[in-house]
Amino acid sequence: MPAAPAIDIPALQALLHQVVAPWVRQIDLRVLEARAGEVALALPIAAQHVHGGGVLCGQTMMAAADTAMILAIVSQTGSFQPMTTVQLQTSFLRPIPGSPDGNSGEARVVARVLRLGKSLAFGEIELQDPAGRLAAHSTTTYALL
Amino acid sequence: MPAAPAIDIPALQALLHQVVAPWVRQIDLRVLEARAGEVALALPIAAQHVHGGGVLCGQTMMAAADTAMILAIVSQTGSFQPMTTVQLQTSFLRPIPGSPDGNSGEARVVARVLRLGKSLAFGEIELQDPAGRLAAHSTTTYALL
Amino acid sequence: MPAAPAIDIPALQALLHQVVAPWVRQIDLRVLEARAGEVALALPIAAQHVHGGGVLCGQTMMAAADTAMILAIVSQTGSFQPMTTVQLQTSFLRPIPGSPDGNSGEARVVARVLRLGKSLAFGEIELQDPAGRLAAHSTTTYALL
Amino acid sequence: MPAAPAIDIPALQALLHQVVAPWVRQIDLRVLEARAGEVALALPIAAQHVHGGGVLCGQTMMAAADTAMILAIVSQTGSFQPMTTVQLQTSFLRPIPGSPDGNSGEARVVARVLRLGKSLAFGEIELQDPAGRLAAHSTTTYALL
Repeated sequence: MPAAPAIDIPALQALLHQVVAPWVRQIDLRVLEARAGEVALALPIAAQHVHGGGVLCGQTMMAAADTAMILAIVSQTGSFQPMTTVQLQTSFLRPIPGSPDGNSGEARVVARVLRLGKSLAFGEIELQDPAGRLAAHSTTTYALL
Repeated sequence: MPAAPAIDIPALQALLHQVVAPWVRQIDLRVLEARAGEVALALPIAAQHVHGGGVLCGQTMMAAADTAMILAIVSQTGSFQPMTTVQLQTSFLRPIPGSPDGNSGEARVVARVLRLGKSLAFGEIELQDPAGRLAAHSTTTYALL
Repeated sequence: MPAAPAIDIPALQALLHQVVAPWVRQIDLRVLEARAGEVALALPIAAQHVHGGGVLCGQTMMAAADTAMILAIVSQTGSFQPMTTVQLQTSFLRPIPGSPDGNSGEARVVARVLRLGKSLAFGEIELQDPAGRLAAHSTTTYALL
Repeated sequence: MPAAPAIDIPALQALLHQVVAPWVRQIDLRVLEARAGEVALALPIAAQHVHGGGVLCGQTMMAAADTAMILAIVSQTGSFQPMTTVQLQTSFLRPIPGSPDGNSGEARVVARVLRLGKSLAFGEIELQDPAGRLAAHSTTTYALL
């Protein structure tokens, strides 16, 4: 198998900024790594995303998972095309503590394409806590429009 | 069956404000109706939540679903207790158009408890577009701590 | 709203027999009711489907849900067309007791189409125990081929 | 990390036979490998499980996934304890052709525990076609009773 072509991380970062809603942009995801069909993003555990129980809120995790999958698909197809989430299932395995008063490190979001068909793409997303342990796990189906 | 006791809507609204993360608070969910085990919320289709494709983003829908279920559980148990989402699955059935330049009406989020056990609660959430059509559908499991 | 056209129950029953695998046919689902986009089936709680814990096994419930959705889609489109399950999520809310020595009544499976698009169909399936209580709840996406 | 203790494959095979319903036993799953938290099973693509479209039916895949996870949990805990499936989500990525007239080789089912908590266990299951490609992917939550 030939090596996967290098993916342009700044281009993915710019795309992310461009396609997501302003509210989602606030999550401040940062593209760390990318290869064909897989991306890794940093997710800051910011006070804004910590709920009353003192942990990173699940809403942020789901939003990060959904967003990361767009980039994983683009990293496989090589360019952005219109697509829409058909379904996304998330299991929450382990809370990630956070502080209401500042940043509490970064979680890592790894999204990979499981299958890219003509009209549907399937993927899974792992969200790891700062210690590298699996904190949330998502599977998703996207429709390519 | 006796009528369900009236639920105090301002109290639910205050609880919502108190328990969710600041970022989720921005969704500006408004409690419309509540009875034991079921709540209806208004979700403003604000520019902040509209993505590059001109529709309400899925991340907002999932966040609203997850948040609404907390209130549905509280409306059934009568008081807030610590709980955590175990899993949440969302299907996206129909896009909800939105404008990047202002509000585009309101979606409606209806969450209901399907079963409340001793340690687990099951629920479903419907998200309806301004015309009342089903736009997203979630099912979820919560652990009562 | 005009009344939905009557659906031919014997035709649905024959279709069910014809399209499912022989192993699934053993579940012996019986079409009880049908209208456009919704069907109700009887599921015998037979000894064959009761596991070591003395309850109807989840595998049977998922198989019944998947099968019922095919008929719900056909009841809406009016004829069978090739289709395939994209995903199916099931939550198990309540066990249904069964005996290893014979039949233990019937569960009821109600499948309804939530949205029928050009290439995707979305649905939900309720499985009720003999007392009519919700025992399992599924949501599913089908691709229309 | 010390090597995981060897798991007794015949004991897992016997357990499988003992705990599942007679109808599920017909799938004839065969334990191939086991280590703490992960098992691999062979799933014969038998005519009984091939539907009218000429492929292994999804009902069989879901049943195999659910069953395999029980063994993965036992391989981690070291002994069988009562447990029940809370939810199981399956995505179907690729059809597995089969013949209505006999066996068509074997699929492989790999189940692994993602997290084993005190009361909940999370896992994922991959179903691979005879060529080793991912054909179905499940995630699941179990309650430990």
